[in-house]
Amino acid sequence: MIPRRKHNASSGSLPPPDDKHASNDYILTDTEARCGWRAALRRRFNRKTLHKRLPVTSWLPQYNAEKAVGDLIAGITVGLTVIPQSLAYSNIAGLPPQYGLYGSFLGCFVYIVLGGCRAVPAGPTAIASLLTYQVAGGVVEKAVLLAFLAGLVELLMGVLGLGFLINFVSGPVSSGFTSAVALMIATSQVKDLFAISVSGTTFLQQWISIFRNLHAASLWDPVLGFSCIALLLIMRKIGMIKLGAKSEDGPSTKQKVITKCLWMVSTCRNAIVVVATGLLGYWFVATYGQPPVRLMAENSRSGAIPSGVPSPQLPPFSYVRADNSTADFLDMVSEMGSGLLVIPLIVLLEDIAICKAFSDGRTIDATQEMIALGVASIANSFMQAYPGGGSLARSVVSNGSGVKTTLNGLYTGVMVILALQFFTQYFEYIPKAALAAVIVSAILFMVEYNVIKPMWRAKKLDLIPGVGTFVLCLTLPIELGILTGVIVNIIFILYHAARPKLSVEMLKTERGVEYLMITPDRCLMFPSVDYVRRLVTKHAASSSVPVVIECTHIYSADYTAAKSIEQLTGDFHARRQPLYFYNVKPSVCSIFEAVAKPEHFVVFYEDDELDRLLAADERLEPAKLAPALAPA
Amino acid sequence: MIPRRKHNASSGSLPPPDDKHASNDYILTDTEARCGWRAALRRRFNRKTLHKRLPVTSWLPQYNAEKAVGDLIAGITVGLTVIPQSLAYSNIAGLPPQYGLYGSFLGCFVYIVLGGCRAVPAGPTAIASLLTYQVAGGVVEKAVLLAFLAGLVELLMGVLGLGFLINFVSGPVSSGFTSAVALMIATSQVKDLFAISVSGTTFLQQWISIFRNLHAASLWDPVLGFSCIALLLIMRKIGMIKLGAKSEDGPSTKQKVITKCLWMVSTCRNAIVVVATGLLGYWFVATYGQPPVRLMAENSRSGAIPSGVPSPQLPPFSYVRADNSTADFLDMVSEMGSGLLVIPLIVLLEDIAICKAFSDGRTIDATQEMIALGVASIANSFMQAYPGGGSLARSVVSNGSGVKTTLNGLYTGVMVILALQFFTQYFEYIPKAALAAVIVSAILFMVEYNVIKPMWRAKKLDLIPGVGTFVLCLTLPIELGILTGVIVNIIFILYHAARPKLSVEMLKTERGVEYLMITPDRCLMFPSVDYVRRLVTKHAASSSVPVVIECTHIYSADYTAAKSIEQLTGDFHARRQPLYFYNVKPSVCSIFEAVAKPEHFVVFYEDDELDRLLAADERLEPAKLAPALAPA
Repeated sequence: MIPRRKHNASSGSLPPPDDKHASNDYILTDTEARCGWRAALRRRFNRKTLHKRLPVTSWLPQYNAEKAVGDLIAGITVGLTVIPQSLAYSNIAGLPPQYGLYGSFLGCFVYIVLGGCRAVPAGPTAIASLLTYQVAGGVVEKAVLLAFLAGLVELLMGVLGLGFLINFVSGPVSSGFTSAVALMIATSQVKDLFAISVSGTTFLQQWISIFRNLHAASLWDPVLGFSCIALLLIMRKIGMIKLGAKSEDGPSTKQKVITKCLWMVSTCRNAIVVVATGLLGYWFVATYGQPPVRLMAENSRSGAIPSGVPSPQLPPFSYVRADNSTADFLDMVSEMGSGLLVIPLIVLLEDIAICKAFSDGRTIDATQEMIALGVASIANSFMQAYPGGGSLARSVVSNGSGVKTTLNGLYTGVMVILALQFFTQYFEYIPKAALAAVIVSAILFMVEYNVIKPMWRAKKLDLIPGVGTFVLCLTLPIELGILTGVIVNIIFILYHAARPKLSVEMLKTERGVEYLMITPDRCLMFPSVDYVRRLVTKHAASSSVPVVIECTHIYSADYTAAKSIEQLTGDFHARRQPLYFYNVKPSVCSIFEAVAKPEHFVVFYEDDELDRLLAADERLEPAKLAPALAPA
Repeated sequence: MIPRRKHNASSGSLPPPDDKHASNDYILTDTEARCGWRAALRRRFNRKTLHKRLPVTSWLPQYNAEKAVGDLIAGITVGLTVIPQSLAYSNIAGLPPQYGLYGSFLGCFVYIVLGGCRAVPAGPTAIASLLTYQVAGGVVEKAVLLAFLAGLVELLMGVLGLGFLINFVSGPVSSGFTSAVALMIATSQVKDLFAISVSGTTFLQQWISIFRNLHAASLWDPVLGFSCIALLLIMRKIGMIKLGAKSEDGPSTKQKVITKCLWMVSTCRNAIVVVATGLLGYWFVATYGQPPVRLMAENSRSGAIPSGVPSPQLPPFSYVRADNSTADFLDMVSEMGSGLLVIPLIVLLEDIAICKAFSDGRTIDATQEMIALGVASIANSFMQAYPGGGSLARSVVSNGSGVKTTLNGLYTGVMVILALQFFTQYFEYIPKAALAAVIVSAILFMVEYNVIKPMWRAKKLDLIPGVGTFVLCLTLPIELGILTGVIVNIIFILYHAARPKLSVEMLKTERGVEYLMITPDRCLMFPSVDYVRRLVTKHAASSSVPVVIECTHIYSADYTAAKSIEQLTGDFHARRQPLYFYNVKPSVCSIFEAVAKPEHFVVFYEDDELDRLLAADERLEPAKLAPALAPA
C-alpha cells in the first residue's frame, strides 16, 4: 500500500511535499463549518468575498476590446431571440404581450453586476410562465407581485444558505417535471395553432376539449402555424451544418463564412419567423382590413399594445377582482399559496442546471446565483414584469455567439428597450399561430425522452420518481406533482438510510478460534440502528461463537445508535456471548462510550488483539475456545 | 490480514467451516428482498410462519405447571395494578371510570393468542389516554370508535409492513415526547389534587389557570392527595430493599421472605392506596353523609358507576352532539383528523420500546406486535373501550412477578371482569385525590431528565430534536409537537446524506508521480453528488496533477450521481487533467458506465496500475510526469 499523507482540505492550499502529518479522521471540506465566528466575519469583508458577491469587480478590471466584441455580438443575437420569446411566453402566462418584454431588460442589467454565469440572460422562461399562469391566473397585479415575492424568496434562500434544498430535486424528478411542463406548454398553444377555444385545467381535460372543438378550427391558422413550425425546425437543422468539417484540410474560408451565415439564420430563426409573419399580417390588414388568421392585437386588453418603457413603480399590493371586490395583500398571498415557494425553487433549479451546463468545469456558486436572480426579479417587479430566470434556449444562443462576460446583458436589455419604445405598434400584426409555432418548435426538445434509456441501464429504480413525477405533473396541479416526486425520492433516501447492508462472515482467528464477523456498510443513525441490532442478534443467536462488529464503514453515529449499542452489549453480556467492536473511529467511539457500560463495550484495532481478548474473556467457557488458546 | 470467507446471510444457517467461497459484494440480509414470489408464498404457509403469526402455537405445547404458577402470580399482581390504573387513566381520557376497565380484559385475551412479548399486558396507558382526550374530547362514542379505527390502522400497518416507520422516531424525540406527556398528565391531575377547576388546553394556559384558582382549593383534598403521593413513593422505595444482599452468605430465608413481602406491598401499592382511601370514603359517607373530599361518583354521568361486563356491540358510527345535531361516521373521522394516525403510531412506539426492554436479547417481531395490538384494540372497541396498548409500569410488575408466557393475561382479564361484576358500586367511594395521587406518583418517573447528560456527552446535536420535541409538545397540540420533532430529525438525516465528508491527500505513485487522492466517505446519491462534484472540481483546479477518486466507501449510486460523474469526467477531459476512479464496486461501476463516456471514465483496482495508466494517458504532457515515467 502506498504510504499516505492527509492534508487538511479546508486550508485551501496543498501542504509542502515533505510535510508528513497523518490523521485517521475524515476531514470536512466545508470551510464554513470549521471556522469560528470571528474568522467568518473577517472573511465576509475581504477582497475574495467582494469578488464572490459582486462578480463584476472580478472581471471588469480585465475587460478589453476583444471581450467587448464578443459580448456585443452575443448580446444582440440574444436580443433577437428574447424579443419574440418574451412576446410568446407572456401568452403562456396569460398576460398581454408587453409584460414579457417588461421582464427582459432591468433584470439583465442587475445580472451584469451580480451574476456569476456569463451565459445566463435573465428573462421570461417557459416553465416560469406556465407556473405564473397557474398561480396568478392571468391577473397582471398578481403576476407582478409574484415576481416581487419570488425575488424576495430567492434572495432570502441565498442569504440563509438554503441552496442545498435544490439538491433534493434529483435528476429523474427534474427530467420528469421538465418533460411534463413541455407537454403542457405545447398543449396550451394548440388553441392558437388551430384558432379554437380550449377549456379545462389538467392535461387530460384540455386534450378532451381540443378534440371536441377541433371541428371549429379555422383553415388558415393551422396552415400558417404548421408551416412556421416546419420552417423553424428546418432552420434549426440548418444551424447544425458544418461545411467542410469532414475534409482533410479543414473547412475553407468560404465554407467557414457560409457555415457562420447558416448558424446566424438558425439562431435568429424566431426573429425571422416573427418579423416575416408580422409583415404578412400588416400587409393583410393594410390590404384587406381583415386578415384570415388571428393577430396578437386580440391578446392585449385595449386592442393596442401600449408603447414605451413602463415607469418604475411599486409592485401592486392589492387589486380589484372581476366581481369588483378588492383583494388586499394578504388575500393575494393566500391565493398564491405554495406557488410562492414553488416558483422560486423551480426558477433556481432551472437556472443552476443551466449554469452547470455552461460552467466549463468551474464551480457554480449557487448562493450568488440565488442572490443575483432574487435581486433581478425584485427589480423586474418594479417594471411590472412577471417571474422569470435563466432559459436554456437563450443560453445556448449566447454561448454559441461567443459570449465573454455578463456584460452582454447590456446590449440585450437595450434592444428590448428599443423594441418597447419604437416597435410595439407593429407587434399587433404578428399572427398568434406564428408565436405558437415559435413556442412549440422550441418546447418539443424539452421533452427528455432520451434520458429513459440510460436511466434504465443505470438504475431502474430511478424510473419510479422520474416517470412518477412526469405522470403526476400532468394529472395533478403541477406544483403538487413535483412536490410528490421529491417526497417519493426522499423516501428512497430515507429507506436507504434505514436499511444498511450487512455482510456476515464466519472467520477464524490466528490461533484458530471461530468467530462471526458482521460488517455494516454505513453510518449508524436512528432509522437504521434497530434494524442492525435485530440482524446482529438474529445471526449471533444462531451460533454461540464470539461476535465481532466491524465498524470501519461507520463514520458517524447518534444518541439513538449509542442506546441501541448499549442494549446490544447488555444482551450479549447477559447471554455470556462475547461481543467486540473492531476498528471504531474515535469520534464514533466517544459517542458509544458516553452511553454504553465500559465493561460491555470492548474495542480493538489490531487483528492479533482478538486472540488476547478472547483468552481473557471470562464470558467464554474455555471448552469453547480452540485448544490453541487453552493454557499450555 | 485474516483471510475472509463470506457467507450468504440470507441462507439462514452458517456454511460448513471449510466452505471457502469469497465474494466482495455486500449482501443484503433482508430475506424478504431476495426471494421470489413463489418462495415467499410457500414461506407464508409453513410451520415457522404459524409460530410467528400465532405465537400461542409455539409456547402452548411446552406449557407446564411451573409456568402456570408463574403466570398465575404475575397475572393476579398485574390485575391489582391494572384495576386502579384503569380507573385513573379513564379520568385522564375524560371518560367515566368504567371505560378504563372495559379496555382491560378482552384485549388481554386476544394478546394471549397473538402477542409475542410475555411481559406486555394490553390495557389503557397514560399516553394513549391523554391522546384520546385530545382527539375525542371526552365523548364516549368518539373514544370507542377511535379504538376501533386505531386498531384497524395498527393491523393495516402490520399487514403492509409499515413497521419501519417507527424507526424514524429517534431516541431523543421519543424521550422529549414522553417527558412532555408526563408533565401534561401530571398537570391534568392538579385539579383533582386541589379540588379546583382548571381551564385552558395548553400546558401554559393550564398552569396560569391553576395559579389563578389555587385560592379556591379545598383543604382536605390536597392533604389526602399529597399524603397518598408520599405514601406511594415510600412504598415504591420499600420494594427496592433487598435484605441481606450485602452479607457474605447471601440473604437468610427469613430475610428472603421479608424482602418478598416488601416487594409485594410495593407492587400492590396502587391497589392498597385505592382500597384504603375507598374504605375511608365509604366510612365518611356512611357516617356523615357528606365526605370532606370529592369522590369518584361525581365522575360518572349518572352519579353511579354501572356494574357488570358490557355486552358486546358494534362501535358507534354516529353520535349526538351537545347541540343535539347528529355527527355521522365521516364527521367523526374528520373530527379525529391526524389523531387516527398519531394514536396508533404512538401506541406501537411505546409497545415496541417495552418489548425491547423486556426481550432478554431476543429479536422483536414488530409486525406481529402490530397485528396483535391491532386485533386487541378492535376487540376492545366491541367492549366500548378506548385506545390502549402496552404500559411500562404494568410490564415492570409483570416481569418482576416472574411471568412466563402471555397466558398471564387470562388471570388479569378475569380479575378485571370480577371487578366489573361485583365491585363497581364500591368504586364510587374512591376519593378523586387518591386516584390523582396514583397517577402523579407513577407519571413523575416518566420525565426522562436523566437522558440529557448521556445525550450531551454522546452527541450534543441530538439535544435539538430532543429538547425541541419536549418544548413543542408542551406548547403545540401534542401530535403536531412530535410530528415536528420527527421532521426536524429527518432533516438531520437528509443533511447528513447531502453532505458527505471528503478526505483529500496529495500522494506519489511508486514511480514518483504526484497525484491528488480524493475519498468520499459514503454513497453517492442525488442530494450529495453536486456537493462532491463541486469539491472535487475545486480541489483539482488548485493544482494540475492527476486526480484519483477513491470509491471504496461508495456502496451505491443512482442516475443523478451517474450524470454528475459524466459531467465531471467531461470537464476533466476538456481541461486535459487526468481523472481516474479507484476501487469502484461492480454494482456502482455499471451505473456510472451506463451514462458516462467510456473513454473518460477510467477505473483501476490495483495500486501499480496507476503508473501504467499515467504513462499511457495522452492528456498528460510528458513534462508533467516524473522523470521515472519518461521513456528511457
